[in-house]
Amino acid sequence: MLHFACDYMEGAHPDILRRLAEVNMQPSAGYGADEFCEAAREKIRVACACPQAAVHFLVGGTQANAVVIAALLRPYQGVLSAASGHIAVHEAGAIELGGHKVLALPHEFGKLRAETVEAALRAWADDANRAHMVMPGMLYISQPTEYGTLYSLAELEALSRLCRAHDIPLYVDGARLAYALASSENDATLADLARLADVFYIGGTKCGALLGEAVVIPDDNRMPHFFTVMKQHGALLAKGRVLGIQFEALFSDNLYQRIGTPAIEYAAQIRAALAGGGFKLYCDAPTNQVFLIVDDAAMARLAEQVEFSFWERVDASHCVIRLATSWATRGEDVQALLAVLRGIQGAAR
Amino acid sequence: MLHFACDYMEGAHPDILRRLAEVNMQPSAGYGADEFCEAAREKIRVACACPQAAVHFLVGGTQANAVVIAALLRPYQGVLSAASGHIAVHEAGAIELGGHKVLALPHEFGKLRAETVEAALRAWADDANRAHMVMPGMLYISQPTEYGTLYSLAELEALSRLCRAHDIPLYVDGARLAYALASSENDATLADLARLADVFYIGGTKCGALLGEAVVIPDDNRMPHFFTVMKQHGALLAKGRVLGIQFEALFSDNLYQRIGTPAIEYAAQIRAALAGGGFKLYCDAPTNQVFLIVDDAAMARLAEQVEFSFWERVDASHCVIRLATSWATRGEDVQALLAVLRGIQGAAR
Amino acid sequence: MLHFACDYMEGAHPDILRRLAEVNMQPSAGYGADEFCEAAREKIRVACACPQAAVHFLVGGTQANAVVIAALLRPYQGVLSAASGHIAVHEAGAIELGGHKVLALPHEFGKLRAETVEAALRAWADDANRAHMVMPGMLYISQPTEYGTLYSLAELEALSRLCRAHDIPLYVDGARLAYALASSENDATLADLARLADVFYIGGTKCGALLGEAVVIPDDNRMPHFFTVMKQHGALLAKGRVLGIQFEALFSDNLYQRIGTPAIEYAAQIRAALAGGGFKLYCDAPTNQVFLIVDDAAMARLAEQVEFSFWERVDASHCVIRLATSWATRGEDVQALLAVLRGIQGAAR
Amino acid sequence: MLHFACDYMEGAHPDILRRLAEVNMQPSAGYGADEFCEAAREKIRVACACPQAAVHFLVGGTQANAVVIAALLRPYQGVLSAASGHIAVHEAGAIELGGHKVLALPHEFGKLRAETVEAALRAWADDANRAHMVMPGMLYISQPTEYGTLYSLAELEALSRLCRAHDIPLYVDGARLAYALASSENDATLADLARLADVFYIGGTKCGALLGEAVVIPDDNRMPHFFTVMKQHGALLAKGRVLGIQFEALFSDNLYQRIGTPAIEYAAQIRAALAGGGFKLYCDAPTNQVFLIVDDAAMARLAEQVEFSFWERVDASHCVIRLATSWATRGEDVQALLAVLRGIQGAAR
Repeated sequence: MLHFACDYMEGAHPDILRRLAEVNMQPSAGYGADEFCEAAREKIRVACACPQAAVHFLVGGTQANAVVIAALLRPYQGVLSAASGHIAVHEAGAIELGGHKVLALPHEFGKLRAETVEAALRAWADDANRAHMVMPGMLYISQPTEYGTLYSLAELEALSRLCRAHDIPLYVDGARLAYALASSENDATLADLARLADVFYIGGTKCGALLGEAVVIPDDNRMPHFFTVMKQHGALLAKGRVLGIQFEALFSDNLYQRIGTPAIEYAAQIRAALAGGGFKLYCDAPTNQVFLIVDDAAMARLAEQVEFSFWERVDASHCVIRLATSWATRGEDVQALLAVLRGIQGAAR
Repeated sequence: MLHFACDYMEGAHPDILRRLAEVNMQPSAGYGADEFCEAAREKIRVACACPQAAVHFLVGGTQANAVVIAALLRPYQGVLSAASGHIAVHEAGAIELGGHKVLALPHEFGKLRAETVEAALRAWADDANRAHMVMPGMLYISQPTEYGTLYSLAELEALSRLCRAHDIPLYVDGARLAYALASSENDATLADLARLADVFYIGGTKCGALLGEAVVIPDDNRMPHFFTVMKQHGALLAKGRVLGIQFEALFSDNLYQRIGTPAIEYAAQIRAALAGGGFKLYCDAPTNQVFLIVDDAAMARLAEQVEFSFWERVDASHCVIRLATSWATRGEDVQALLAVLRGIQGAAR
Repeated sequence: MLHFACDYMEGAHPDILRRLAEVNMQPSAGYGADEFCEAAREKIRVACACPQAAVHFLVGGTQANAVVIAALLRPYQGVLSAASGHIAVHEAGAIELGGHKVLALPHEFGKLRAETVEAALRAWADDANRAHMVMPGMLYISQPTEYGTLYSLAELEALSRLCRAHDIPLYVDGARLAYALASSENDATLADLARLADVFYIGGTKCGALLGEAVVIPDDNRMPHFFTVMKQHGALLAKGRVLGIQFEALFSDNLYQRIGTPAIEYAAQIRAALAGGGFKLYCDAPTNQVFLIVDDAAMARLAEQVEFSFWERVDASHCVIRLATSWATRGEDVQALLAVLRGIQGAAR
Repeated sequence: MLHFACDYMEGAHPDILRRLAEVNMQPSAGYGADEFCEAAREKIRVACACPQAAVHFLVGGTQANAVVIAALLRPYQGVLSAASGHIAVHEAGAIELGGHKVLALPHEFGKLRAETVEAALRAWADDANRAHMVMPGMLYISQPTEYGTLYSLAELEALSRLCRAHDIPLYVDGARLAYALASSENDATLADLARLADVFYIGGTKCGALLGEAVVIPDDNRMPHFFTVMKQHGALLAKGRVLGIQFEALFSDNLYQRIGTPAIEYAAQIRAALAGGGFKLYCDAPTNQVFLIVDDAAMARLAEQVEFSFWERVDASHCVIRLATSWATRGEDVQALLAVLRGIQGAAR
């Protein structure tokens, strides 16, 4: 079986495991006050060209989103998000559990236009009943999006400008940020994110770590007592070092900036191979996720040899599925996948 | 400096690291549906003599407590706990964030008597205003307690009987359970816990894992949709395997039952050494935490050579401090600590 | 100025005020345990042909919705609602504050089709990721809807059947229920609601009371400790009698069934008068709310003499507005309104 | 039967009912934007000598507490309160439902000393683990307290000074404030409260209104969007006028300042009569609640003729009970009560 179901099937990049082993018996302080976390923070600040940033390590994406949003919003506020946003669909109501409404907006394959956001802000501001409604209190986007699409630097700048004009924070979910950074179509750096976003997180779990996400807060004053908010959400690790060691490794020798490159190349090869024969690209996205529309016969044949993710049914005979590559994908598996795809396409012609 | 501040200063037991490395590039399903988690679950079921138990892996103790309590209580209920309970003091209000009151009870060095719990249940039931009050909906205890003391099997049976008579679940926080199991004074096995508790967790973070706690639910029907509750709390790891691999290692060759033994012996040596000279045992506890009352002069001298945890001030010239051993404590460090203690005591005489 | 902005502009029906005065100095028990509440409950049970129903009095609609939904749902569940539902739009996030997501569905002028609801239930059940998503745990509808439309008995039966087949409760928000009961197009009685819904509330605030809503729970076992849930939500009145006295009056001599009749007739007259001249019915609804599309010139002229509710802008030159009648509307004001409408229409021709 | 169980057994002061009837059919805007609310606000501002205060009308005490505390605290903060405080005991966990811990402090018959509060603030600030603990974010007191005792002006000033020195708001629950204002022992005026507290509420429900509490916020900027927070908590009345009309009546002709006077005098007579014969004052409180310790025999005899509130059992043969007077208490009933008390005392001698 060929494994292309997701980008969190393996353990960690070898550099990370090696480093965990090297310092394993070296004692350190708990709760993120250790030297490994401090070193990782410093490397991340440098990578973001943001020397004053606060950096906190959390365990997973849903947790990072819930904690950041809880810390950013006031009780009467909600969070603007694409209707396809992870917080809107696949977090089992974590944001609502925290007391906040997700204000879902129309999107284009996961991306929000600045005009869409502006219209939503204006609609609220202009509504005579706005005091009876949830006030939009922040904007959530993901880079890359849940469909693997990317915001350009110009688009991020427009969103950032808009948020600042309306005095609401912009938060960027970077669960797969390494795959954005590795994409040739990407023109937004970590430093751009640190300049344009009010909070963002650098994904570790899907980008080579065993687990972990690094929340970056360019202006530390924005979220006082964030440490306690983390604790209150059960998001504080006693052995915070486990995350610090991993991010220190990810931000040594530009590993984080490099780690997604093969995944991007493999995904490009897969996309290139998908031309007819029961397969069609669902959207043209330049990162490590390939969404395609398949007819049911092709899907059944594919499933015999390849693990993929079922996304949704489109009509009586077609579905959307996802093939994902990752830092751990092997070239020979990609070649084998391409052969499988060609076989199914040939049969379909 | 000698490190006795806590039991989460190092990484993981070598068996765990080795196993993480061995299977690192082997792909597996996400979110705990992998073979490693399944193997760990099965070993835990065997160790608990509870073949039908549900076992879920969470990341930390505060998280485990918050998720379990959220899943067990109805909105109008609160959780009974010793006033010293971790949930009552050191979780930054995580239980209240979930909407529930912690009903704090008087205790003896962390332990609750069955009579105390019964009195609280009766007080609520007898109160004419009980419908205006928080209904006690479950009992939380920790084994060992926050002061390192242990419930005997007879005491656990009494609490369990009481809870069942009042139809409220008994939940046991086992953050340091390995140190209970390793104590010669302990007479309650994992199988006893599975028989007497409605939910309990087997602590990994403080007992040799990088991170992780195994929540055991002897009767799986008690908490339907627990997986979704975990997700909603940001407590579900994409790479659930990281926890499964570790618990599989901890429950191979009885490692979990053995791992605390040296810590217990070292703690006993430290306790034995503490007789006079500015030091006094705060409580007599048979596990890996040693609480002592020290005068300020002795504390100052100790602090020059030893890392310990400050607990609280007792009076103008005395404080309570904690020395903790762990699975990672080295014999030579204990010998050095004993020498330091003798030196301070000698000077004080 | 003619007042047609809403149906909560005046005090209470004279019968209610009279009764409040009559028993004013008669002492009674607090928190709804008084004889007035008991008498009101009994009359409501009779009117609903549901002798075993539990009846609780709450203060307002948003409160009733929040308390009922909190009591019905488990933490991992959300509530299905028309996207136009009061809980989805105009309660400032009260349901999310309680930790639950409102799962918004497409509707026809406020009404949900059974097929729409079934599709949503099926979509969740069929989704491979459903354990990562909010589980639909109940259905919320309003009768009449926020647009004044009515569910027929057959439609209610279909929704009820569907909910029971999927084992989720059906909850009916009856903020304006008196105006449904008074409509000649209505064929669903209180007894039908008690038979088909799992919980519903009989609106008082908009139907002749100073304030108050009567929550009816045909099967009392469905929501244990509802009294405490009310208290916890700040929804329990010390002088519960204030609500009991009012509902006793509303359910004496069929007042509640009669009280909406003039409002319905006046609304019909207004609808009949709206034919051209800058006005167009937005939807054809048989109760006390008249939604119309007006061009900006007509709206400006109307605003000089009539208070109405602005609803939303349709395009550059048209808006939706609402005219509402109520139990307190006076015939002479309706005549004056019709004259104003005719004047504006005449000018527009 | 003589009714002394509580101070919310009757309807409203006749002035209030009269005014409700007078303006009953006069239309007004909804949600507190009406002229009655505005007039009431203005009168309250004058009575408080605080022309810039924001005044909001809520329905009940638990609701007012929940909404104010939700608006004042940040998520990681809790509220300091006497362990006997209404929020700590008798609100069914409403504050915890809102996500906040009630930090209970030792008290003297309901009153907190400034030193006690300061010690709690200092204990948190000095605790090495404070970032793992709930941060005290505000102080809640009640005037009169739950035991009927009063803070002197000097005591209020000390608490206010302390809160300002620690930059936490002081909130005063005035559910029975009229009985404080009417007490000869009281030296703190409404203007003092407006000067010393950051928020307080003027109780209506127990002081002559059908229902309602007026929340006063001397500095309106302290709680932005309070209206929306009210709505979100289901605490906003569509017919806000119902509360405005009542508070306008209560603050006309100094009614609120006068309304408690007879209750205070009657309570003083009852206290004076309680000397021996099975009765003993539990605490010496100068307002409308009389707490006494009774032996079981006396309690049984009393219960034959008098309704009182059972408070708690003291020992095998004694209990604490409460007799309450109110604005509605009749002199002849007090005389009858005194006769009953004398009879029981005589028999006991």
